[in-house]
Amino acid sequence: MSNSHDKGLENRYDSLELITQEVLERYAQTPDPRLRELMLSLIKHIHSFAKEVKLTADEWNFTMSFLEQTGKWCSPGRNEFMIFSDALGLSMLTVTQDYPRPAHATEPTLVGPFLLEDAPQFPMGADISAGATGTPMHAQGQILTMDGQPVANAVIDVWHSDDRGLYDVQDGLEERGAWARAVLTTGGDGRFSFWSVLPVDYPVPQDGTAIQMLKATTGRSWRPAHLHFRIRAPGQRPLITHIFDRTSKNLDGDAVFGVRPSLIADFKHQASGIAPDGKDMMRDFYTLDYNFVMTDAIQ
Amino acid sequence: MSNSHDKGLENRYDSLELITQEVLERYAQTPDPRLRELMLSLIKHIHSFAKEVKLTADEWNFTMSFLEQTGKWCSPGRNEFMIFSDALGLSMLTVTQDYPRPAHATEPTLVGPFLLEDAPQFPMGADISAGATGTPMHAQGQILTMDGQPVANAVIDVWHSDDRGLYDVQDGLEERGAWARAVLTTGGDGRFSFWSVLPVDYPVPQDGTAIQMLKATTGRSWRPAHLHFRIRAPGQRPLITHIFDRTSKNLDGDAVFGVRPSLIADFKHQASGIAPDGKDMMRDFYTLDYNFVMTDAIQ
Repeated sequence: MSNSHDKGLENRYDSLELITQEVLERYAQTPDPRLRELMLSLIKHIHSFAKEVKLTADEWNFTMSFLEQTGKWCSPGRNEFMIFSDALGLSMLTVTQDYPRPAHATEPTLVGPFLLEDAPQFPMGADISAGATGTPMHAQGQILTMDGQPVANAVIDVWHSDDRGLYDVQDGLEERGAWARAVLTTGGDGRFSFWSVLPVDYPVPQDGTAIQMLKATTGRSWRPAHLHFRIRAPGQRPLITHIFDRTSKNLDGDAVFGVRPSLIADFKHQASGIAPDGKDMMRDFYTLDYNFVMTDAIQ
Repeated sequence: MSNSHDKGLENRYDSLELITQEVLERYAQTPDPRLRELMLSLIKHIHSFAKEVKLTADEWNFTMSFLEQTGKWCSPGRNEFMIFSDALGLSMLTVTQDYPRPAHATEPTLVGPFLLEDAPQFPMGADISAGATGTPMHAQGQILTMDGQPVANAVIDVWHSDDRGLYDVQDGLEERGAWARAVLTTGGDGRFSFWSVLPVDYPVPQDGTAIQMLKATTGRSWRPAHLHFRIRAPGQRPLITHIFDRTSKNLDGDAVFGVRPSLIADFKHQASGIAPDGKDMMRDFYTLDYNFVMTDAIQ
């Protein structure tokens, strides 16, 4: 703006406050108290952000277009908006805030964008890789209550990458069906076990908008190798978490801030021979032992 | 959560601060200074919001799904995310903040979700309704500089609703082509004129996610009747604004906070007879006279 016009300018900062006030007054009429609380806080923070950074019309236009593009990258088993939430730390903040637990209960972490409801069911001990490529891995453990009792009828969703760092939802899910993804249900002993392939480190999807944001900002787009678990059981609070591979080079720089020390475990290299389930392995493989401690359902 | 576990809880509020701190430290490495400023402020406000309202995992899940659904309502000429920005007052805040102007220059207002680039060009004075239904309307005026000089070669985009309150982008644009939408270019006198149909009040689109939010919150989803203008000319700052119909019942409760008193004008009812351009009208019609004062381009 040329300086010669400065004297004629309206006091535009007064106007900005009037806009915020008008919007807040309107949304104060929201009937539901919780929704009202959410909307008023959201509006206050969005407006504060825009004023604090003096958001320009060009930046606003870019953002609107970027949000529209982000919507186009969503598909069954992939929510690109979740990757933004994950990459901005909002997911871990919410998970941590909304999951009070005793210190000895398993820590939750973010769900990530790739959970599918209605994954295929497998019998306990089965190979869930379903054609996924990679080094064989046997995982086992027990689902326990806070008091150390086995959790019967726990429904375990497990999903993870293959040795390319891809998930089934990124590689023709509709044609090939699910792979490296299963639902398992515990018996009275609360134990679980399955065969699959060893997960590897991988970057956030390379074809969406979230990766564009990460490349322009933190430059950290990789995730350490991990297995995803969602465990649900009667009387227990649903637990969504990962188990991370201690040998990963990306434990300190997870693109989505999901690593917690208690969730790092040993995926142990084993020479060919007898596996934990008695299977005679002709090639090297990995084993994982991990017990999950659930928390009681919220009263 | 049952009270018996309270003593064993981690201090989760300390953890929340550590998460925010870790995220801010990571994004502080953003190379571009302006992007760094935007990201750090955005993260700070998103985290503050989530902590202030104690956002739950269920609310987060709903939000992620709602964003994904919002993406599905976007199509050429309709950006559903813009309707949220408009309805939360962010659009007017940005427009007002980023458009310093002398008091006598025309006020800007929000662009809205329905602008199309590359709209059809019409000669000055043409009927741009292109089949839109409604009462005939003649609009005319002049594009002026801040010093009152006519602006030659101003490119004017105009777009508006028909008498059902719909835009072409909401009614089979691909099959019917554009209607009630045009690009006009001024000559040396800076004057413009066109025929079309009188716009009417209308609600935010009834089939998307923004209307769901408005119904659950403010209950105000209507916009007062208006014409949209975007005016671009060499040496002038692009002006995006509306002209509102003074007889509208919704001037005080615009769903998107776009009304400014200086943008309210008289759409005058005229009995059949000679129109401003000399045309002999066999039925009643409306006339609008409005001059736009642009501001100099930013130096």
